[in-house]
This record gives sequence, structure tokens and C-alpha cells, in this order.
Amino acid sequence: MSFSDSVVQRPEPTPAGDLMRQYTIDDYFLDRAIDLAWLGAGRTHPNPLVGAIVVNDGHIVSVGYHQRYGEAHAETIALERAGEAARGSTLYVTLEPCAHHGNTPPCVETVLKSGVRRVVIPTLDPDDRVYGRGVAILRDDGVDVDVGRRCERAMLLNLAYFKRVLGLGVAVTLKMAVTLDGRIASRAGSRDQITGTDSLRFVHRLRAVNDAVLVGINTVVVDSPRLDCRLIDTEATPVAVVLDSRLRFPETSPMQAGDRTVVVVTAETADEDSVVALRQSGVRVVKCGSDGGRVDVKAAVAELAAQGIASCLVEGGGEVFSSFTQARLWDGMHVFVSPMTFGNEGVALSEQAFDRSQIGAVHAGASAGAGDVLMSFVNEKTRDTLLKHLL
Amino acid sequence: MSFSDSVVQRPEPTPAGDLMRQYTIDDYFLDRAIDLAWLGAGRTHPNPLVGAIVVNDGHIVSVGYHQRYGEAHAETIALERAGEAARGSTLYVTLEPCAHHGNTPPCVETVLKSGVRRVVIPTLDPDDRVYGRGVAILRDDGVDVDVGRRCERAMLLNLAYFKRVLGLGVAVTLKMAVTLDGRIASRAGSRDQITGTDSLRFVHRLRAVNDAVLVGINTVVVDSPRLDCRLIDTEATPVAVVLDSRLRFPETSPMQAGDRTVVVVTAETADEDSVVALRQSGVRVVKCGSDGGRVDVKAAVAELAAQGIASCLVEGGGEVFSSFTQARLWDGMHVFVSPMTFGNEGVALSEQAFDRSQIGAVHAGASAGAGDVLMSFVNEKTRDTLLKHLL
Repeated sequence: MSFSDSVVQRPEPTPAGDLMRQYTIDDYFLDRAIDLAWLGAGRTHPNPLVGAIVVNDGHIVSVGYHQRYGEAHAETIALERAGEAARGSTLYVTLEPCAHHGNTPPCVETVLKSGVRRVVIPTLDPDDRVYGRGVAILRDDGVDVDVGRRCERAMLLNLAYFKRVLGLGVAVTLKMAVTLDGRIASRAGSRDQITGTDSLRFVHRLRAVNDAVLVGINTVVVDSPRLDCRLIDTEATPVAVVLDSRLRFPETSPMQAGDRTVVVVTAETADEDSVVALRQSGVRVVKCGSDGGRVDVKAAVAELAAQGIASCLVEGGGEVFSSFTQARLWDGMHVFVSPMTFGNEGVALSEQAFDRSQIGAVHAGASAGAGDVLMSFVNEKTRDTLLKHLL
Repeated sequence: MSFSDSVVQRPEPTPAGDLMRQYTIDDYFLDRAIDLAWLGAGRTHPNPLVGAIVVNDGHIVSVGYHQRYGEAHAETIALERAGEAARGSTLYVTLEPCAHHGNTPPCVETVLKSGVRRVVIPTLDPDDRVYGRGVAILRDDGVDVDVGRRCERAMLLNLAYFKRVLGLGVAVTLKMAVTLDGRIASRAGSRDQITGTDSLRFVHRLRAVNDAVLVGINTVVVDSPRLDCRLIDTEATPVAVVLDSRLRFPETSPMQAGDRTVVVVTAETADEDSVVALRQSGVRVVKCGSDGGRVDVKAAVAELAAQGIASCLVEGGGEVFSSFTQARLWDGMHVFVSPMTFGNEGVALSEQAFDRSQIGAVHAGASAGAGDVLMSFVNEKTRDTLLKHLL
């Protein structure tokens, strides 16, 4: 996770020096715990996603993740599996262990009973019943607790949860898939598969942890996307939201399967007859302000909030990406890069230039599936706000 | 390094299951050893870059890297620092420990004396005096040896060394820096800093391990690059090579500092008076075949090989990237991505479309410095060829 080159040059290397402090073994285990936590996506709501790993003498003794709302918590699963091997171990868990009786007993009790010597967590749990109390109880009992490493990546794991619990408004996550040369399609109007199945499955997890999935009307017309979560085990069906200032939404769309809620956000100037026709076909139509023929994304997200949508995955295309970036209306960003190019015929991710400070993306992690690379970022402002409440 | 989503879905998670086998703790330590090894870039030639880490009971006991040709090897430094703590440990080293007396005694002897229980290496050393013998000696003495993990990333570390020792021709490494929207400059003729200092320092390491650094004439005219290694501690001064079919090379260029060798590769059709003038200014001019007004890169690399250049870092710009990609004339690729966009005014990385199989890039690692993400790939064909000789 770190270039050799972030290391301060020294005439003599220090044993386990700066280099080893950059991406530490704690970071490694926390990252694996975060990977595990994602496996529960779409089944734990309103609980957060949590993963846990028990490590003793450098070996992974057991792992666990919160698999379903109402069922056991991650750390309890991992510790029960570890049994006696948890004694003297380090517990890596992606969120502060709970300190209250809910559907299950407080996790801190399980941790204390297990004989764990050290607990490593990226953030506190902002839930009032837990916040700081989990850590305090553990420390009072002599357990070492480290808080803060990999916190950016942990924020992305539970962005919707954190913003909801803290009352910070709709959590907006951008997702795009680009080629090496930054194209999102091979040509205008073309439907292209850029990323592989591993990446798609992760996208379905992202969908499953969001109340809504949003695309622009171009994407609907060109790609006919289903915007569902079929590649993972979930009953989550996020609301499909389409930004469509001129009401070009087709008569039928694959995203309307079953009793799926589809919301079309259009401009105030939209033709009323078209609105009525679309409503008759079962689509919810919302009018909001527009600017230069494009729906104002801030107004659109406010409308979604009014409809009870607390989290939204924005999947593109390029115009939508530019609008949300321009408005700085995003909290997390996942960019999949595929080692191919579309060249001059291709459709660019962004028509506009945004410098580093305008985007304000803080790197949260890079990983790779079969062929693609995933770069994840958290918005600098979101990071700063959340840190005040989570550390 | 792995999406949660590469995991096969299971009704019940297996303890330390598939997920934990993807990016293992061995991978983690090997990656850190590779990070360390890069610190020696530009000082070990003709030796390879090597890093080593001694791990006991899950803790890093000591680290080392080969700092300079003729001086101690990485594993010897690490094991001497570890002392008694090496007993029963695992030694992670980025190349098979040597089995022969060179400037220093055989490393395998040091390993055996130290009491290391297990050695983990990405690849064998293709040097005839070592190949397989280092591993055999260790195993004969009861040391467990694991070979093969992180081998793609280790290939990139010593690409020039491997190809030279194996007689596989010039090692070609592509390096580019792009924005999120795949642009390499904000507009035609503009000189832009896309990546940060961490990334630049890594680029200087890449330069220092290559015999030559190659750019297109556009890059020379627009950027006036020095193409040196000033950010790191090295005396390496790679030959500067410029592809310049129409001999637009300027009268003076910052890359001509000191007694630096500058080679301009031009087309057979180049004006002879210009060739003479350029030669008088101290530049070596080489004529070779061209195609559609562009120097044929295969012919150019063959000319470089004839001049004793065994490894070349290709730094762009876009046309050069396309030419080398089109010719499949590359072994390693490092792509820096900066979280910003240049929009429609920007200069595209590639004018041409290359699908995944045309590029044939196998992912070797993703990492991040301050702000940028580095994606590294090895050419599928190079990987397959090297694997035959290195495992």
C-alpha cells in the first residue's frame, strides 16, 4: 500500500524503520477484516457491516463477520471460533465493539471473557449506546485498544451507517469504471463491459448497502441497466433513481422488475403530459430545479432525502459524475480501472477539468480483483467531519 | 489487495477461508521486502535489488536491503541484525539466497547458521551459480522454502536483471502518469505536474535501474525534461533516448547535463545536414526504419540493444505509449493515477483503442503514496516466459 519512495532517505536504514510504519501489519489485518465485513453487504441493515479477525503469535486463529441483522456480531463469531486460542491474542475488528444489550449481549463482555490482550479498531461506533464506552470498558479491564488506523477505508465500509447515525444527511458514493485512458464507453451510444465479474460483484455490494442507486438518463437509454444486486445474497432492492431533465425515460426498463421503486427526477420545466404518462406506468416522478438543462443535483438529493432515502450510490455516466464532483456532493468514491484503452472514439469520464483540491479526494485504499484495479477515495471534507465523531 | 468480492460465496464463512488465502500474510511481508529492495535502486548494478525481512511470532525482528554493489546482501544484513531472534523465524527475501562465493560468502550459509526455520521467496535467481541451488541447500538442511508468491511484483523489481541474465533481450518498462479521466496533460503543449513527490521519487528509482530512459520528441519540446535521478542517492545516469523522426531536437536540452549520453533515434529519411549539426552538438544520432512518419519502435529498440543498452524505461508521451503498446514491446508497466481531471481540453493517453487482450497486462500490485495511486502490471507474455525460468 505504500511506495518505497515515501520513505525518508537515510544513509543507513533503520531496522523496521519508516517504511515498516507506513503500511503496518495492523493495517494488513484491518484491511482483511474490512474485506470480510463487506461479505455481509445487504443483509445487516440497519446494523453496520463488521468483520473481525483473531490473531495470535502472527497467525490468524479465526475470522468472523456480521452476516445478518439480528444474528451474532462479527467479533463474537470470531472469538467463539477461536475458543482458548483467543487468550493473549489481538482482535482486529472494523468497528468499536458494542457495549449494550441489543439482539445479542454486549460484545465487550465476550471480548473480556475471551482473554484477548489487544483490540485494534479503525473507528469508534457513533451509536450513542456505544460511542467510546466500548473502548473504555475494554481499557478499564486492562485490554490495550488502538483506534484510528485504516479509518478512511472503514469510513467507506459504513458510510451510510455513519452519516445516518450522526444525522449528517444523505451519504453519496460515486462509482465509476474507466479504461487506462479514462474512457467510460468505446463510443457514444455504445454499451461496453469495462470491468470483470469480481468488480461487478463488489458494485452489487455497494448497491445493497445504499437506499438508492442513481444514474443519468443517458445510461438508462444506452445500457438498459437493471441496477440490481443479483450477484450477491441479499434481499435489498435499492430504489432506482434516474436524472432525466427532459423525460426521455423509456416505456419499459429492466430496472422496473417486480415492485421495484423507480424515481425519475426531472426539471420543473418538464412536459406535464409526459409526467402524467410516466406516473401511470408506475414510475414516481419528482420535479426539481435545473441548471442549463441539467437537473440540479443538490436539489435532487434533497428531494431524495425528503423521500426517506439516506444513502445513494451514483453510478454515472460522465455528465452525472461531473455534476456531483462540481457540486462537491459526494462522500466516497470507488474507481475501477481496467487495463485497456478506448482511444479517441471513446467517451470521456469528465468533460470538465477538476484539479486535486476541487475534487478533494483522500486515498482510502487500492486493491485488485482479477484484472481490474479498484481505487477508493473519501471526500476530504467528509473525512474531516467524520473523524471528529469517530476518533 | 483483493476485493471482498473475489470470494466464492458460501452459506457459512470458513474460518480463515478463501478470502484469507488471496492476499496472505506471506504476501504482505514479501511486499514490504520488495518495498525495501527498491531503496537500493541505482547502486546495486549489476546485482539485483533485494530486500529481506525477518519475522518471528508475527513480529518484524529486523529488515535489510542490498545497499550497494560489493556490500552485504539483504538477507545477511537482516539476519545479523536479528541475531538470536532469527532462531525459529521466517525469512522473507525477494530473491533466492545465493549459494556461491562472490564479493560476500554464500547467503545460504548465513541463513542456515541463523536458525531460520522457513524462507519465503517470490522467485528463484536465474544466475547459473544460484538457480535452484540456494533452495536445494536450504531444504536439504530442513528449512521450509516457499517459492512463487508475489512473483509478478518481484519480476518488476528486477526486470532488467532477469532479462539480462536469461538473455531475453532489452527489458522495456512503460511508465505513465494520468488523471482520473486518462489525460496526460491539461492541453496540447502544456507542461503539467500530475503526480506528487512520492511518485516522482519512485520514477527516479525506475530510471536508475534502467540503462536508458526514452521519450518522444513532443515530450522534449513541451516538458524540457532532465530525465535524471536527482531525487535519490545514486550515480546512475541512464542514457537519454529521444524518438524524433523529423529531427526537431532543440539546440540545447536540460537532459544534456554533464557528459550524459543522449541518443536521438530518427527516421532513415531524416535530413543529413540536420544529422550532422546534431552530432556536432554531442548528440548521438541513430537512423532506423519508420512507419507513417513515426520511428519504428522495434527497430529503435534493436538499435539500442546494438549499442549495449539492455533495459529501457519508456516515459511517454501518448504517441510513444501507443507505439510500444501496439508493438507489444513492453515487459512492465507502471501507471500513476492522480485524483483530478483535465476534461475535454486534456491530452489523451492513447489515441488508439487496445482491448484487454491486446494490452495483455497482468496486474502485479497497486499501492498509494501521498495522493497518487500506482498500478503496476507485467506483460502476460513476459510473465509466462520468466515464470519458466524463475519457478
